[in-house]
Amino acid sequence: MEKINSLQNAHVKAWKKLQTKKGRKQQGEYLLDGWHLVNEAVKAKVAIKTLLITAKQLATQPDLTKFPAVIEISEEVATHISATVTPQGVFALVTLPKAPADELAKLDLTRPWLLLDNVQDPGNIGTMVRTADAAGFAGVAFGRGTVDVHQPKVERAMQGSQFHLHLISTDLTTLVDRLHADHVPVYGSELNPQATQYLDVDAPACFGLVMGNEGNGMSRELLAQTDQNLYIPIKGRAESLNVAVAAGILMFGLYH
Amino acid sequence: MEKINSLQNAHVKAWKKLQTKKGRKQQGEYLLDGWHLVNEAVKAKVAIKTLLITAKQLATQPDLTKFPAVIEISEEVATHISATVTPQGVFALVTLPKAPADELAKLDLTRPWLLLDNVQDPGNIGTMVRTADAAGFAGVAFGRGTVDVHQPKVERAMQGSQFHLHLISTDLTTLVDRLHADHVPVYGSELNPQATQYLDVDAPACFGLVMGNEGNGMSRELLAQTDQNLYIPIKGRAESLNVAVAAGILMFGLYH
Repeated sequence: MEKINSLQNAHVKAWKKLQTKKGRKQQGEYLLDGWHLVNEAVKAKVAIKTLLITAKQLATQPDLTKFPAVIEISEEVATHISATVTPQGVFALVTLPKAPADELAKLDLTRPWLLLDNVQDPGNIGTMVRTADAAGFAGVAFGRGTVDVHQPKVERAMQGSQFHLHLISTDLTTLVDRLHADHVPVYGSELNPQATQYLDVDAPACFGLVMGNEGNGMSRELLAQTDQNLYIPIKGRAESLNVAVAAGILMFGLYH
Repeated sequence: MEKINSLQNAHVKAWKKLQTKKGRKQQGEYLLDGWHLVNEAVKAKVAIKTLLITAKQLATQPDLTKFPAVIEISEEVATHISATVTPQGVFALVTLPKAPADELAKLDLTRPWLLLDNVQDPGNIGTMVRTADAAGFAGVAFGRGTVDVHQPKVERAMQGSQFHLHLISTDLTTLVDRLHADHVPVYGSELNPQATQYLDVDAPACFGLVMGNEGNGMSRELLAQTDQNLYIPIKGRAESLNVAVAAGILMFGLYH
């Protein structure tokens, strides 16, 4: 088995760059960090190219025959390439999937879609993807301004749900046009005078639900495209709900 | 105005200790960090003893007459006593409120209560308190194992909602007995064979809802005391929901 101990190794330098969107695009790969995600990827039959593993983790997992290639790395290398402070010491190198040209034409429109418009916090994004998975949604669309699907902190926060539903990265106005072409309603989430209380909506089996930026809400352009704009009635004196909590209330409230 | 620049100053050492539960108990005080919390405390008429403020912040707020005492602190002192990496430079020193002996006898039982059983993550706790505020709950009870109300990260995460509803720290089994004495039902949240789908429950105006530990759920003892145990149906393949998201779905689902 190949062993890599030095931070000066060219592979290590390349893996480190996978923490950035530019690095992932240039190399056409991304990293999954930790056993939970690696195992979820295996279960989902994601094509793992190489497993990177420390001697300590190797000792606990003698059978790695399911991985096409395995490289032993030092603890120092593990810490260097991880986005966490105390990595477990196991990583999967995965080919960045290419979205098929006809991706938008082939969407599953039997169930709802969550649209993330310029959402910034990896924890919020990951929690919303997990919740969409739990609520039985078909998929989650990451809009242009939203943090990248394969950003390490986003990958970690999704806790495996990234392998359970369809994640797409797309221009959301194009996606809304696509949904409208099939008469799928799209709901915004912003409190304004025209907004409808979410419990007053009788949502069909397939709809789009847009969640906006933590501070600024949805973009004007997208808001103009929505069929209805929903609000959650605030009874107390809180100024707002956390975006992931609001998304959970709306997803389970509209689709059950 | 008194100025304190040195980390060796006895006041500074004392303020630093307010980051720990022991320090807060010994000194009978806690710190609020940042303008948002300080302003919410002022709005809520919380008795602030002293405002600690850097020269930079002082320049933006010439009128501090509403504070009984003001001490100018250096940026170094601000960073030292803050639990955040980049503090704003303003803190309020507040007397730790003493719970009245008859606190449990005088609870508002016209609206629901959220009970936190051994919840550990300050972000989750803060988000749940905000959500309880938004949902119009009467208050939130922090059980013995749950992180302290006045822990700096919990204070920050509550974003002012700590001043909008009644927060109590108590033994939860005692509180459940108290609620039962007034025929207030208490709902657990754990998936088990006896659990009821949350939408099948017709909750009264006042009820208790218990959220448990992130990894281990509710304690056995408390679970045995609940009237009904609720679950949120998972349609997809997510293993679980984030505790704060689950709390949001249950609070808004049961009380609207």
